[in-house]
Amino acid sequence: MSGNSFGKIFILTTFGESHGEAIGGVIDGVPANFALDLELIQRELERRKPGQSNLVTQRKESDTVQFLSGIFEGKTTGSPIGFIIPNENQHSTDYEHLKEAYRPSHADFTYEQKFGHRDYRGGGRSSARETACRVVAGAIAKQFLASLDIRFSTYVDQVGTVKFESEQFFELDKIESNAVRCPDAKIAAEMEELIFSTRKKGDTIGGAIRCIIEGVPSGLGEPVFDKLHAELGKAMLSINAVKGFEIGSGFDTVSMFGSEHNDIFNADGSTKTNHSGGIQGGISNGMPVSFRVAFKPVATLMQKQTSIDQQGNEIELAGKGRHDACVVPRAVPIVESMAAMVILDFYLRNKSVHL
Amino acid sequence: MSGNSFGKIFILTTFGESHGEAIGGVIDGVPANFALDLELIQRELERRKPGQSNLVTQRKESDTVQFLSGIFEGKTTGSPIGFIIPNENQHSTDYEHLKEAYRPSHADFTYEQKFGHRDYRGGGRSSARETACRVVAGAIAKQFLASLDIRFSTYVDQVGTVKFESEQFFELDKIESNAVRCPDAKIAAEMEELIFSTRKKGDTIGGAIRCIIEGVPSGLGEPVFDKLHAELGKAMLSINAVKGFEIGSGFDTVSMFGSEHNDIFNADGSTKTNHSGGIQGGISNGMPVSFRVAFKPVATLMQKQTSIDQQGNEIELAGKGRHDACVVPRAVPIVESMAAMVILDFYLRNKSVHL
Amino acid sequence: MSGNSFGKIFILTTFGESHGEAIGGVIDGVPANFALDLELIQRELERRKPGQSNLVTQRKESDTVQFLSGIFEGKTTGSPIGFIIPNENQHSTDYEHLKEAYRPSHADFTYEQKFGHRDYRGGGRSSARETACRVVAGAIAKQFLASLDIRFSTYVDQVGTVKFESEQFFELDKIESNAVRCPDAKIAAEMEELIFSTRKKGDTIGGAIRCIIEGVPSGLGEPVFDKLHAELGKAMLSINAVKGFEIGSGFDTVSMFGSEHNDIFNADGSTKTNHSGGIQGGISNGMPVSFRVAFKPVATLMQKQTSIDQQGNEIELAGKGRHDACVVPRAVPIVESMAAMVILDFYLRNKSVHL
Amino acid sequence: MSGNSFGKIFILTTFGESHGEAIGGVIDGVPANFALDLELIQRELERRKPGQSNLVTQRKESDTVQFLSGIFEGKTTGSPIGFIIPNENQHSTDYEHLKEAYRPSHADFTYEQKFGHRDYRGGGRSSARETACRVVAGAIAKQFLASLDIRFSTYVDQVGTVKFESEQFFELDKIESNAVRCPDAKIAAEMEELIFSTRKKGDTIGGAIRCIIEGVPSGLGEPVFDKLHAELGKAMLSINAVKGFEIGSGFDTVSMFGSEHNDIFNADGSTKTNHSGGIQGGISNGMPVSFRVAFKPVATLMQKQTSIDQQGNEIELAGKGRHDACVVPRAVPIVESMAAMVILDFYLRNKSVHL
Repeated sequence: MSGNSFGKIFILTTFGESHGEAIGGVIDGVPANFALDLELIQRELERRKPGQSNLVTQRKESDTVQFLSGIFEGKTTGSPIGFIIPNENQHSTDYEHLKEAYRPSHADFTYEQKFGHRDYRGGGRSSARETACRVVAGAIAKQFLASLDIRFSTYVDQVGTVKFESEQFFELDKIESNAVRCPDAKIAAEMEELIFSTRKKGDTIGGAIRCIIEGVPSGLGEPVFDKLHAELGKAMLSINAVKGFEIGSGFDTVSMFGSEHNDIFNADGSTKTNHSGGIQGGISNGMPVSFRVAFKPVATLMQKQTSIDQQGNEIELAGKGRHDACVVPRAVPIVESMAAMVILDFYLRNKSVHL
Repeated sequence: MSGNSFGKIFILTTFGESHGEAIGGVIDGVPANFALDLELIQRELERRKPGQSNLVTQRKESDTVQFLSGIFEGKTTGSPIGFIIPNENQHSTDYEHLKEAYRPSHADFTYEQKFGHRDYRGGGRSSARETACRVVAGAIAKQFLASLDIRFSTYVDQVGTVKFESEQFFELDKIESNAVRCPDAKIAAEMEELIFSTRKKGDTIGGAIRCIIEGVPSGLGEPVFDKLHAELGKAMLSINAVKGFEIGSGFDTVSMFGSEHNDIFNADGSTKTNHSGGIQGGISNGMPVSFRVAFKPVATLMQKQTSIDQQGNEIELAGKGRHDACVVPRAVPIVESMAAMVILDFYLRNKSVHL
Repeated sequence: MSGNSFGKIFILTTFGESHGEAIGGVIDGVPANFALDLELIQRELERRKPGQSNLVTQRKESDTVQFLSGIFEGKTTGSPIGFIIPNENQHSTDYEHLKEAYRPSHADFTYEQKFGHRDYRGGGRSSARETACRVVAGAIAKQFLASLDIRFSTYVDQVGTVKFESEQFFELDKIESNAVRCPDAKIAAEMEELIFSTRKKGDTIGGAIRCIIEGVPSGLGEPVFDKLHAELGKAMLSINAVKGFEIGSGFDTVSMFGSEHNDIFNADGSTKTNHSGGIQGGISNGMPVSFRVAFKPVATLMQKQTSIDQQGNEIELAGKGRHDACVVPRAVPIVESMAAMVILDFYLRNKSVHL
Repeated sequence: MSGNSFGKIFILTTFGESHGEAIGGVIDGVPANFALDLELIQRELERRKPGQSNLVTQRKESDTVQFLSGIFEGKTTGSPIGFIIPNENQHSTDYEHLKEAYRPSHADFTYEQKFGHRDYRGGGRSSARETACRVVAGAIAKQFLASLDIRFSTYVDQVGTVKFESEQFFELDKIESNAVRCPDAKIAAEMEELIFSTRKKGDTIGGAIRCIIEGVPSGLGEPVFDKLHAELGKAMLSINAVKGFEIGSGFDTVSMFGSEHNDIFNADGSTKTNHSGGIQGGISNGMPVSFRVAFKPVATLMQKQTSIDQQGNEIELAGKGRHDACVVPRAVPIVESMAAMVILDFYLRNKSVHL
């Protein structure tokens, strides 16, 4: 009921607060006898971790994952994979001043309303630090999917008003060629500039991420409540700061006519256009799955803001420590990880469609 | 695994095809000893049913729900509520010509890819007829929520390029004052005109629906994977023809600065703005929950389209029978029903947050 | 949370009270494209239904199942199978005198304590009538398993002090050769005699059922919480009147030494003895799965008993209508159905153990 | 699907092998704002750990639990509690000789059949070491239940043919007054003698445990598939070496008449006898819950046994290292822990029975 697990067969359960001893998780339902590349998992964590470029928060955390079970002689055993990522940077004192404050557009107020007990240290469980565990599970899922020729291209599509607006599949090296993770060098430079100028003002800015998945076989997804894009949507909306999700033509579809929107078939069952984003009736059709995710600007500002404390007194707040001015560059591997978990889970679910 | 159930405590399981004997469902987890108004449930079904106005498909179906269990002497017993809605209008012959065809942007192709067996009669399980069962469960959920002063305002926000763009809470009679279910008479008229002109061309058009929920207490939703808006998103994206979901500021947030986006608190814990859409960190904050859903144009056109058959031969198709030119007027109660199930489910889940 | 569903992939959800309009259910996760013999399902229902012999209750109910969905042109579509069994024999008046009474060792008292609202008509949801739905799902599961050469032998092992005590696999015709469903004619006769003499006294008597499953491939069951025999145990203990479950050597194992209990391997991986009951570490080992289930005597007596009413007044009760003096002959198909659902579910679950 | 989680609201997920780096788990659904006594949890672990008396295996493991999350300032936060228990005694070399052997009545063969990859180090995941994690979660559950005046009395009821056969509630100090955990000093001495003489022969012996739970309020348990005793049965049968479960009168009920078995009510709703074991129709009735669990003799013998290796060659085996001759003394806290998790889970589930 408490919602710290994700998936039906390939299931990630996470635990841990930003300023506790460690975060970690358990991945259950891992197919057995598969050789895992543990370094590849660590490398994915590097893409999410703070301090990786001058564009992101300069907190220093090594984010090193330690695997405790489920892998023997380099291969998955079919038993659950338990792992932890120690918290090295537990400057709880950075947060002492927030003990009684409710930060605007943070989860301080709602957590306290719900649980009656608040972990004020850096947001506790509401911190995006928890997403590191998703990246671990996602990196594992991606290795399984890679063996099935299912490949991901996830990149920054928009920062503030700077738009890339592509639905092309770009290779990882292209995406990683700049710190903002937009495959177009010129637009990436504009995005970076916007992030820097925003940060200089002590402000933050929103963004969007596009994810394209090639090689998804037709038939994944379940017809009614567990449509493939419904689960992808839930996965994305469960990521901190996400405010919107659209599959294929998404919100543009609202103003389209059926005659322009319908994807006409080629003789081989592929379609001439892909407004459906690779999914019809909740089930993959063999075309690339394509979706887009909207992120709000980071709520912690270096600027001063007014807010209230637990007694309802007006107070003034300004962020201390080191925070991102724009979340999307570091969110790219998180989006990809959640997508990978969804696809692998539906792949495994689909195994029982026939006896 | 097959995804015909929705919810964790208040659980709807549905069955049935558009042209089988009946559709129906089971609602488990219904709180006991609550007096249900069965007529109110039927009235909600009328809002979804075909033939209700000249704006929608003229199929004649009475959509009468029959309750088989779980209600005794007018009250819920705590046992599951089983119900059926007989299919009266089983013109399977309308669909004989589609037996071997794959209709563009329908689920014909993907169902056959997945199951290896196709129910070609009106789409079978992929038909939006299934959503009538959701309306039954949603109408029940709304009665529980009404007793808690949780109220819904769901209306058409956009048809094609005709936009209403409001986030106001409108009462039901205002929404029901026209066939398109847009609370502004002038804009509603424009929308209707667009739908009529589209239909005349044998074409279809997309649309969007806004849903606002007042009275949601703070504390509903779970912190990590089961965030309140993540589950709302999944619920909406599981509805036929939905392509996008946004909570609060949604996709507009992408181009906003943190300093304009953050919702500043009033002394009582309410906020001056509601960009968050009533949810912070996945948990309701006591402000109105507000979200928007994008629907694609109906895939069945009266115009001719080219497509393929099972052998990959090019064929020509045109819709027969009676289909909607725009889905959103009839989708209003479906959106509201899914939202109600989500809110009630989280309300019940929240009961175990303290011993 | 309300527990009206069983299984993880092949999932039965049931609804309905003994004296409502109908009982029924939904079976989700049915593998697609499989030809079902619907008459075989009805025939299994006949084995459970009242009035089938002079040994059991003489209530007249035809127990005819009507399938509403999920089957098209004789084959499963992969969509959920919805079904109902109308209640024909709704003599609620038989139960008027019980409206305020708590019958000893019935669920009257506990239901009222839990739900605060009581369906006094024949026990409502607590009636064993609900198990007819289990037989429908079990009969379907058995057809799938039969195609995999997994076969069941379920029979009465004990009535009162009359014991059969076999662990042999008997064919169905042998089991069905007498009304008590014990494969040994002489012992069966003794059992019948005991049931008749017990009934004559207005009393009831307990019994036990043995189930043996041949052809279960090795590898079914999950290592830790979802051990194959743990799920079988839960399945059996969920049947009305069941008080005990034992796998393989069961309670006899308590007084055994390891040197006599261990199952020594043959060269082919089979074992010389089968104290394990076909399961080691929660996972099937390829030997026959063998378990035994204890049933208490039926709580409704024709004799007079003292009891209390809702106000705590002492009252006198005696059963009216037509009740079984011993439940095990009719429970045989129920035990077998639950076992079949468990085995099929684990078979489907096991499909994702490897990529 | 892989079954490493237990519970619906209060959910334990475990990971770890006997000879990996650590075992551990995540407890989700812990009610918030509850002061936990961490030492009490450690003390429960001491009751399960090896080397605690001369009666049990002399392996030296400190079994120290480390909590990583979910507890802040001494209280539960409502976030998941992650914990690990490091493995100190990883003598994998003790098991080198078993690398290719299948030990009789162990899980070696079935794991390899299922997963195609074997962790031969001390049984890997199939080792009873995993149950330490259950004791952690159970010890937490018991603290919640103690605050509700729900109390447990769990003790050894039988070792081999030495029977205690009581259904009395004994206090913990009485149970802990001897190493075998049987509250009767004289019978305990006989049991110990039997265990010692069995060990001397290099053999092992079975046993049984009784658990009595007082203070369970009426109304816990769900009517159909999730009956309280069905879930208790599954919980017990999921413990290593368990072969049978009986509630209340259990297998004795088979030879009883209804007129002797029925529990007649007192005026206050309690019953004169408790053959039902505190549960009617799957729902607790306020009387003590009482059940009994059968354990097989430990499969690892110090005596020589014949067995086979992976190639089917006959081999000779004898246990090395330090193993229990009888499992029940150390199994007492495991049985109690699983029972506590079940009761707490149903307590939380019952919170949504009314709005």
